[in-house]
Amino acid sequence: MVNPSISVDCVVFGFDGSELKVLLIEFGRKMNNADPSQLKLERKLPGSLIQEKEDLSAAAQRTLVELTGLTNIFLRQLYVFSDPNRISRPEDLEWIKNTYEIPVSRIVTVAYFALVKIDKSVLQHTVEGVSKWHGVQSIKQLAFDHKQILMKGLEVLSQQLLNEPIAFELLPKRFTIRQLQNLYEAILGIEIDNRNFRKKVLNVPCIKLLDEKEKGVAHKPARLYRFDKAMYEKDIKKKMKYNLNFIRFTD
Amino acid sequence: MVNPSISVDCVVFGFDGSELKVLLIEFGRKMNNADPSQLKLERKLPGSLIQEKEDLSAAAQRTLVELTGLTNIFLRQLYVFSDPNRISRPEDLEWIKNTYEIPVSRIVTVAYFALVKIDKSVLQHTVEGVSKWHGVQSIKQLAFDHKQILMKGLEVLSQQLLNEPIAFELLPKRFTIRQLQNLYEAILGIEIDNRNFRKKVLNVPCIKLLDEKEKGVAHKPARLYRFDKAMYEKDIKKKMKYNLNFIRFTD
Repeated sequence: MVNPSISVDCVVFGFDGSELKVLLIEFGRKMNNADPSQLKLERKLPGSLIQEKEDLSAAAQRTLVELTGLTNIFLRQLYVFSDPNRISRPEDLEWIKNTYEIPVSRIVTVAYFALVKIDKSVLQHTVEGVSKWHGVQSIKQLAFDHKQILMKGLEVLSQQLLNEPIAFELLPKRFTIRQLQNLYEAILGIEIDNRNFRKKVLNVPCIKLLDEKEKGVAHKPARLYRFDKAMYEKDIKKKMKYNLNFIRFTD
Repeated sequence: MVNPSISVDCVVFGFDGSELKVLLIEFGRKMNNADPSQLKLERKLPGSLIQEKEDLSAAAQRTLVELTGLTNIFLRQLYVFSDPNRISRPEDLEWIKNTYEIPVSRIVTVAYFALVKIDKSVLQHTVEGVSKWHGVQSIKQLAFDHKQILMKGLEVLSQQLLNEPIAFELLPKRFTIRQLQNLYEAILGIEIDNRNFRKKVLNVPCIKLLDEKEKGVAHKPARLYRFDKAMYEKDIKKKMKYNLNFIRFTD
């Protein structure tokens, strides 16, 4: 049995090497005219009402496994959207009625954001399935209040990118400095000086140079790096304890 | 009309100059014996079911105005607690039934955390009212899953203290460096070297020395400082744009 008052919606971010992408579901909505075969194509975030016996994170994971085939996804609570009128347009109410086959008056939705490495297996799932990757910058509108949820996702992603090494959840395990810079530029929406960026990255002890280079590229193959998560976590603990680097807003 | 599925609970933090405090509500619960006058004293976080026509933040603010008399409180979403069995003990279910006079099967609660300056007017409210300040370290147990919510509040407060100048929401407008250090030590649960701390703070341009000293203290009066929020916000924007200090985990 579903709980008619609470849903989850997931902002699933991915990165293709140059652009920040988000996973959207396309659906056809009947238009207000005599011909029922005429559908208006709309897009929404993946989501679901929660089941009576599951918690929110289980509901979000259930939604994401179906769409991506991945069971071990980086997933965090983003924000709760609870405006009593967030679903009030007649076409939105009708869609919910038709989809869940229960009367729904008000739905509070808990938004999650997920970070996914867009590799072959994920691409297979999302190109063949009901959901598709879209460039975040190209998204003009979404159904319900999902554009607002997407923008909140982008805001929180930017903040956390500044304070935690979550960039590496989006990159391939072995990456070039160019790819890392592209990722920061795409998420923060700024241009970064190449030399400064390279210098900064080379100074981070937990970003390790590998004995490998890119393969199959037209340009001169660049060196590959990996992120040493275990080392990062050890360092952070040490810093908390000894270095007193914690008034970070003094940077 | 209340919505029986969703509640808010508020972790209200305050600081008295040496200890981190949290605002708790005390209530008596009937004990399982023949004498109904025997009550067991329990403590919980302030909270409420949401009304049909209000969003979550309005519900949290409503709860806090009643308890503190303050209308302009620093308030953020903390986390959603949605375990289907989070309220399952018979005495908890009975308390909810008696309090709200409606049948309730499962409540998802959205936790907020608030930061409050414990000044005279707040103290008057909370000493005379139903809620009281308790030292966070002294809290052994709370009703429902509220201890878990409090611990999450403490975790998020620590994280945000490292990345944002939220310390000043808890301090008086004019404060000593000693007070600021006490606050960091109380929240992070660590001891900090006095000299290092002082040096770091004096290097922060948006912490301004005032032409005033403490009054009415037994020891040698210390100098007073204030936090220049407008300057901080200008600086942060500039840094984002030019200084590329954003891979902060390299600190």
